[in-house]
Order: sequence, then structure tokens, then C-alpha cells
Amino acid sequence: MNDPGYTAPGPEDIRNAAARIAGKVHRTPMLSNQAINRQLGAEILFKCENFQKVGAFKARGATNAVFSLPADELKRGVCTHSSGNHAQALARAAALAGTAAYIVMPSNSSRVKVEAVKGYGGRITFCEPNLAARESTLLRVQQETGAVEIHPYNDLRIIAGQATAALEMTEDGGPFDIIMAPVGGGGLLSGTALSVHYFSPSTIVIAAEPEMADDAYRSFTQQTLIPSVNPQTIADGLRTSLGSITFPIILKHVTTIITCSEESIINAMRLIWERMKILVEPSSAVPLAALIEGKADVSNKRIGIILSGGNVDLDELPWIRK
Amino acid sequence: MNDPGYTAPGPEDIRNAAARIAGKVHRTPMLSNQAINRQLGAEILFKCENFQKVGAFKARGATNAVFSLPADELKRGVCTHSSGNHAQALARAAALAGTAAYIVMPSNSSRVKVEAVKGYGGRITFCEPNLAARESTLLRVQQETGAVEIHPYNDLRIIAGQATAALEMTEDGGPFDIIMAPVGGGGLLSGTALSVHYFSPSTIVIAAEPEMADDAYRSFTQQTLIPSVNPQTIADGLRTSLGSITFPIILKHVTTIITCSEESIINAMRLIWERMKILVEPSSAVPLAALIEGKADVSNKRIGIILSGGNVDLDELPWIRK
Repeated sequence: MNDPGYTAPGPEDIRNAAARIAGKVHRTPMLSNQAINRQLGAEILFKCENFQKVGAFKARGATNAVFSLPADELKRGVCTHSSGNHAQALARAAALAGTAAYIVMPSNSSRVKVEAVKGYGGRITFCEPNLAARESTLLRVQQETGAVEIHPYNDLRIIAGQATAALEMTEDGGPFDIIMAPVGGGGLLSGTALSVHYFSPSTIVIAAEPEMADDAYRSFTQQTLIPSVNPQTIADGLRTSLGSITFPIILKHVTTIITCSEESIINAMRLIWERMKILVEPSSAVPLAALIEGKADVSNKRIGIILSGGNVDLDELPWIRK
Repeated sequence: MNDPGYTAPGPEDIRNAAARIAGKVHRTPMLSNQAINRQLGAEILFKCENFQKVGAFKARGATNAVFSLPADELKRGVCTHSSGNHAQALARAAALAGTAAYIVMPSNSSRVKVEAVKGYGGRITFCEPNLAARESTLLRVQQETGAVEIHPYNDLRIIAGQATAALEMTEDGGPFDIIMAPVGGGGLLSGTALSVHYFSPSTIVIAAEPEMADDAYRSFTQQTLIPSVNPQTIADGLRTSLGSITFPIILKHVTTIITCSEESIINAMRLIWERMKILVEPSSAVPLAALIEGKADVSNKRIGIILSGGNVDLDELPWIRK
């Protein structure tokens, strides 16, 4: 890679992010389950970001980004386009900071997610459900309001915020042989990889991705950024492609990326629900699914897995045919 | 009430039970949720027995009962009739203690529960699905094996074991204004009431029960034991009637019993799933359901609620019509 034109967050950036978001987001617990450990012949600690504010790790990055803004930028408000957890996370962080959040959402966003953003006081502009419309609408909103754009993952403040999850894991349950995270846009994964590199250098980082949205796997293998085209995986949080900032960090600090089938994701999700009695969204189940498929040698290893979120539509569970 | 012919567990019995089961069952966490607190205008801490071994508080009582047995009784094995969580809990406790568990289960028990009992090494005898058949089959098994019967709730060792949940709540999160538990056979409720009486005497105990299975409410109000007749509530853990041992303790130490509709149970269950990202069974949702119905004045109170268990059939969720 050539000089990317920026400096990846350093250990102090991540520690500062942790201090900045303390008390504003949860320090989530890690849980383990004997049956799952026995099944894999490993000791797994699950970092429960499904219990995080707004139900996903996204609260970390958004909170860090908003509270990093200088006062003159903060008062202009923040904006983003998102149909998912980042929209809620940004709206919540802006409300906490006493500023406005302008959220561009595709017109087909679920009612639940729209209501959640409104519940945090986010000001929503709807657009056609395609990337071009999202970007052009966001540009218009930004020009009209002067708000600062906070990208969901391709942003150093977001990455430093997401990195605090792995920092906590290392502090609360380390050392691990392996830490795993799912990969979509790469905000969580790049932050995790940096934290592990700085704070637990003997640990390796393995990412997991659905076969149906394997842009990160292909980009990693071919060492060149290959965006995904309209991926259809059930793991809706992982349909985005890596970014220009997240990809080089991942290439440098992640050991390997493994993939899994859609069926494995559903089975692993159900296994976590049944055995651990916690709700996780399909994206959260991807690392465990890949391990159950035998994609990495984990026997007798100590493994930390980030459960990225728990926002599911309880009327539409993948194992129930209506 | 006349002399019941036994002495209710004392504070030392409950402390001994806590010491006896330590390391064999989980000391479960308490979780809270801002949205639920806001909705009720109260501070609620939920004691997560859904995370308990076998997925329910029943692990406490069964483990205490089995490990209370003198060596000569223990080696004969233990037995019970149960279609639910007590069967698993007793099978597990017996396996831990290195003895046999003989479980009489009605022939229409769910496959999942039968497999779970087998998974813990329980020896199952099936019988016709009615109380008479369960009792006569159990008697025969007991005569053939010499096993010691461990009743699911009408047993002092079971009550002392279930009492450890409220003891932990008081130690970990007290003092509370109110502690709440659902009531079925009354093992959890009588133990909870005793623990609160001994260890947190300024706290009151409120029980909650489905309207569709309100034998405890009617018995409590009329001060005489009125068994329920074939109750149909979705809260399957609460279909049993109070026992001769649990009822007098409840009458003496519980402040009030409140009830709720089936619809409220389903709504409260879904609220807990969606907001807290944890799985609870319908029985667990009954106290919150009654509070949401406004059946007790809880404004600005500090309340501990025992979530009794998390064993649900994920193929059959009450809010999904197939």
C-alpha cells in the first residue's frame, strides 16, 4: 500500500476514546457457555455488544466521534446516511451532546428503525433506496445545515471508538489466543485489530464474513479493495464494503478472514439464543458460524468473540416459516 | 393456620444452601434497562435466572436438595415427576453428585425437554399425561429403585435452595423497596419471602400470577388453599398449584399477590426480549406484566424482579402467527 494520507489511531487515541465514552455507553460484560465450549473444544468469551446502548457496538464509535468534535463544529450538528444501527447511534450521541443529528434514510427503512431514530431526536430525510440517492441527499442536507458528516466506518474517530470493545476485552478477560469480529465496512474489525496490536500483541485477530458478502475476504486475499455488489446475506449489518481507511489497517493487522454459509449463520444464531439466552442479530453469529464450520483451528484455544449487536425483528425470525 | 408440622427454613438454612450450591450453579447477574425504568417511573433490577444452569432458578433448589442428602440416601438416587425445568435440574444435580436421577415424564412432554433430561443422564419413565398417572408411576419407580423423591416445590430443601436467589439480590443490589417473583407451586416465592424476611426486612414481597392460573391469588385472599383446575395460561411454569408447605410461608411473609392478563404477559415478554436482548420464558414476564397493568404503585420505587427462566421453544413464539 502507498501512504494512505492519514495516520491510523494510535494507542493513545484508543485510550482517549475509552475515557471519552465512559459513562455514555456501557462497559458490556463477557459471557461464556459450557455447551458451546464443549462443542468447539475451546474456551470462548463472548463480548456482549448486543447489550450496548442502541443494541450494537455502533454506539461506541458514534459517541466518540460526536464528543471529539470541537465546539464550533459540534454546534452545527452531525449528519450521515444509514438504514441501520449507526443512524440510531449517531442520533443518540448527538442528543447526549445537545446538538442536532440529520439522518438520511432510504424510504424502505424498517418502521422500527425509523421510530428508533426519531425516538433519539434524529431529524430524518428520506431518499430513494440506492447509494447514489443516499449520497446526493446527504450532500444536500449537509449544504443546507452545515452539519458535520460522520461516516459509519470510514472515519478515524469511529474506528478509535469501536476499538474500545477489544480494549475492554483485553482488560477484563485477556490474554486471548484469538480475538474474532465480523466484518462489514470494517470499522469494528480495524479498531479491534489496532487494539489487539497495541494492547495484546500475542493475540491474533481473525475476522469472519458471510460467503454471500465476501468482499473483505476477496479484498484481503487479493490485497486490493474489491467492493461487494448488492450482497444478499441475512447478516444485514455486513452487506457494506470495506472502506479506504479501514482496509489498509485490516490488511496490516488481521491474521486471516474466514467465511461461512447462510445456513451456518442461522444455526449459530439459534444456538446462541437457545444456549446463552441472549438475542443476537445474524451478523453477530458469523464468527461462531465460521468456527462451527471448522474454518480455523481453535482446539484448546482461548477465544474472544465480539457479538456485534442484538437488533432483530422479532416478527421475522429466520428459522420460522410463516 | 395450625401448626404445619414442620419448621420453615431459617436464615442459617438459606446461608447453608448458598454455600452448598456455590460453584455448582451460577451467581446470576442483575440487569436493568433505562427504557423500562422510564416506562414505569421506577428503578428495576432484573435477576437473570434465565442465565442459570438448565436455564431456570430450579437448578438452585434441586442442587441444594441433592447435596443435602446423607450419603446412604444419596447413593439410592433421586426421583421426581416433572415435565419441566425441575426434571432437568434434578437430573443435572444428580449427575454432579454422581448418583442416579429417575424422572417420570408425561408421554406428551416436548422432545426438547426429554432430550435435555437425557443429556444430563436422567433415566426417564414415561406415563400417561395426567396427575394420577404421574403419581402412581413415580410411586412404582420409587418402590423399584429405592430412590429419594425430591418434590419440585413442596420440599424444605427446595425452598431453601430457591431462597438463595433473593439472598444474592439483597447482597448484590439491595436494599430494595419491593422484590417480586412469579408464583406457580410457590417454591421460588416462599424462598424469596423467607430470604427477604431474614436478610432485608424493610423490603416487601409482591408476587405476580396469571389471571388464567390465579389459584395463589384466590388462596391468599381467602386464606385457604384452593388448587387450580387445569389452568391454560401461556406461562407454563405457573400452572401448578401451591403446596401445603409453600402456602403457609407465603401467607405469612408475602405482602400481596397481583395478577395480569395473557396479553400483558406476551407484551411484557416481548418488551424484555426487545429492550434487554435476553430470552425469558412467559412465566418470567408475569411480574413486569402486572406492573405495566398498574396493579401496584411502584413510582420512584427500587424494585428487584426475579426472571425465573429462559426456556422457550424458538419455533413457537406467541407473537408470531404461522
